Amino acid sequence: MVKTVYWEDDQLYLLDQSRLPAEISYQKCVTVEEVAEAIRNLVVRGAPLIGVVAAYGVALAARNYRGHQEELAEYLEKALELLSGTRPTAVNLFQALKRMRQVWHENQALLPDQLAAVLLQEARAIFTEDVAANQAIGRYGADLFQDQVRILTICNAGALATCGYGTALGVVRSCFEQGKLMNVYACETRPVLQGARLTAWELYQDSIPVTLITDGMAGALMQAGEVDGVMVGADRITANGDTANKIGTYSLAVLSRYHQIPFYVAAPMSTIDFSLACGQQIPIEYRDPDEVRTVMGTPITVSNIDVHNPAFDVTPHYLIDAIITEKGVARPPYSETLAELNRI
Amino acid sequence: MVKTVYWEDDQLYLLDQSRLPAEISYQKCVTVEEVAEAIRNLVVRGAPLIGVVAAYGVALAARNYRGHQEELAEYLEKALELLSGTRPTAVNLFQALKRMRQVWHENQALLPDQLAAVLLQEARAIFTEDVAANQAIGRYGADLFQDQVRILTICNAGALATCGYGTALGVVRSCFEQGKLMNVYACETRPVLQGARLTAWELYQDSIPVTLITDGMAGALMQAGEVDGVMVGADRITANGDTANKIGTYSLAVLSRYHQIPFYVAAPMSTIDFSLACGQQIPIEYRDPDEVRTVMGTPITVSNIDVHNPAFDVTPHYLIDAIITEKGVARPPYSETLAELNRI
Repeated sequence: MVKTVYWEDDQLYLLDQSRLPAEISYQKCVTVEEVAEAIRNLVVRGAPLIGVVAAYGVALAARNYRGHQEELAEYLEKALELLSGTRPTAVNLFQALKRMRQVWHENQALLPDQLAAVLLQEARAIFTEDVAANQAIGRYGADLFQDQVRILTICNAGALATCGYGTALGVVRSCFEQGKLMNVYACETRPVLQGARLTAWELYQDSIPVTLITDGMAGALMQAGEVDGVMVGADRITANGDTANKIGTYSLAVLSRYHQIPFYVAAPMSTIDFSLACGQQIPIEYRDPDEVRTVMGTPITVSNIDVHNPAFDVTPHYLIDAIITEKGVARPPYSETLAELNRI
Repeated sequence: MVKTVYWEDDQLYLLDQSRLPAEISYQKCVTVEEVAEAIRNLVVRGAPLIGVVAAYGVALAARNYRGHQEELAEYLEKALELLSGTRPTAVNLFQALKRMRQVWHENQALLPDQLAAVLLQEARAIFTEDVAANQAIGRYGADLFQDQVRILTICNAGALATCGYGTALGVVRSCFEQGKLMNVYACETRPVLQGARLTAWELYQDSIPVTLITDGMAGALMQAGEVDGVMVGADRITANGDTANKIGTYSLAVLSRYHQIPFYVAAPMSTIDFSLACGQQIPIEYRDPDEVRTVMGTPITVSNIDVHNPAFDVTPHYLIDAIITEKGVARPPYSETLAELNRI
């Protein structure tokens, strides 16, 4: 399995996902500004991965500090702000930064070099915990399925979206390892094509059976009885279970309900934002219209046509059959069950 | 308005829609084989347009005939078979060819040159009738909408799909002319992007307000209350109202029903196949997997990934609020109302 992120010789290396699958290359980040830019430009994407990369970004900032001890606070605060301004929807980013800020505040007495080491250790802890969480999600999720299951997914909630194994694709992997996966239908996920570029590639690498479809084909596949369950990741889940995820997810949830196909969300607890009561409060990122007007640099329409380009949509809790976390599977009513998992 | 097809100096000229919107160019067809190839390769597409182009193809074949009178029948039958084998789903193709065959059979006594003239006249009649039908569809369809309407559509059921004015976009045009159109949302319509390449371009040319979206965004737009009605074309409608149309249409119909948004089909009577009782009998065309694996020639995924690529899906009659034809608007039960319109 290809690494999405690693740290070597005081530098951060990011698998450049914007170039996949044509090219497997790593972008070296030497400054926190480079890390922020990489998050903004989708070099790395996927809610859990964004979180850990931002954490490494804080460690990198501390490592680079060459000023006086008394100005370190202002410097680090700026770095945290820079990182938190990169993308608005995935809450893992803010959770990871909150955690890094707390570790920093608990260790303010340390010299910059010592603090940098502690922050790096924390980023590594977030990394390790994420992999473990995904494996647990995979185990819990696979228990929801019977034999010879056909799972439909959107975007990439795989090893590439996380520190390894994946959330929605972690469940797929577990089903595959248990010999009960028949096929995965991967929605290509326009505009940025994470399904075609990342999910299809990631599953193909691991010899997991996958069929690529365009986003408009999901309904007809369900109508034909070809889908046993829909499994998606999440960028932010609110206390009541409302879930922000890649644009197109909401359509899949409605289609699933209409066809009486279970619709599942797989996400680590770090994706749940208990500070928000419901999905209407989640800030939705609108991205460059040229993402829709072009495909991998090729123009596909009138150059200045009006475009609508939200990166995410919100699926209301009542369309979700279960939310699979590393602490277990939550069922409705989520306002109670998610809170319970959080207390474990 | 750009011409989709015209006849000049015994040659057929087809607007090459596969190159739009980057390039406005015409492909000259001198033989019926070239016409068949142009239909197969999507140089021309759209059910009504395919029908009229095939009719011109028959006229072209007759015009080119240089053999003996007694071998003309075999020759023309071959030409008809070639054309009818180009694409399986749109019924207008078969209706137009049936009509040409009938005119031929009624005029078998004529010399080849005279017959060619009669066949050309018939192709021109199909062309003229299609434009008139679209204008009537537009008028009937516009009556279904109130002021400041926002219409969502998929694929291209416009002037480019017909001989002029359009079916679904004919209704849009009528709404626009009556000053009651606020906006059109055009689904880009992967894999071949007829929405991005053709609908967006066609409406932009005529200064009709249009916003391009990816196919996965339709549900979220409906959820946000941004869509007042969905208007689509059709490739074949069966006697009970089941409708084959571009892949993705069925998803829109389910989403419309869930959000209580009216879902309309606009099509000429020539698209209704009264010989088929229901949609399961419609042959669905599966196209080259590379249409999904690439976008306008650019690879977007693993080169040999498994792909599902039906060009059409079937929307069951019970998800359709009305079918708009040039003879009037049919409401459920369609098995009665469509038959009634057919008797007019």
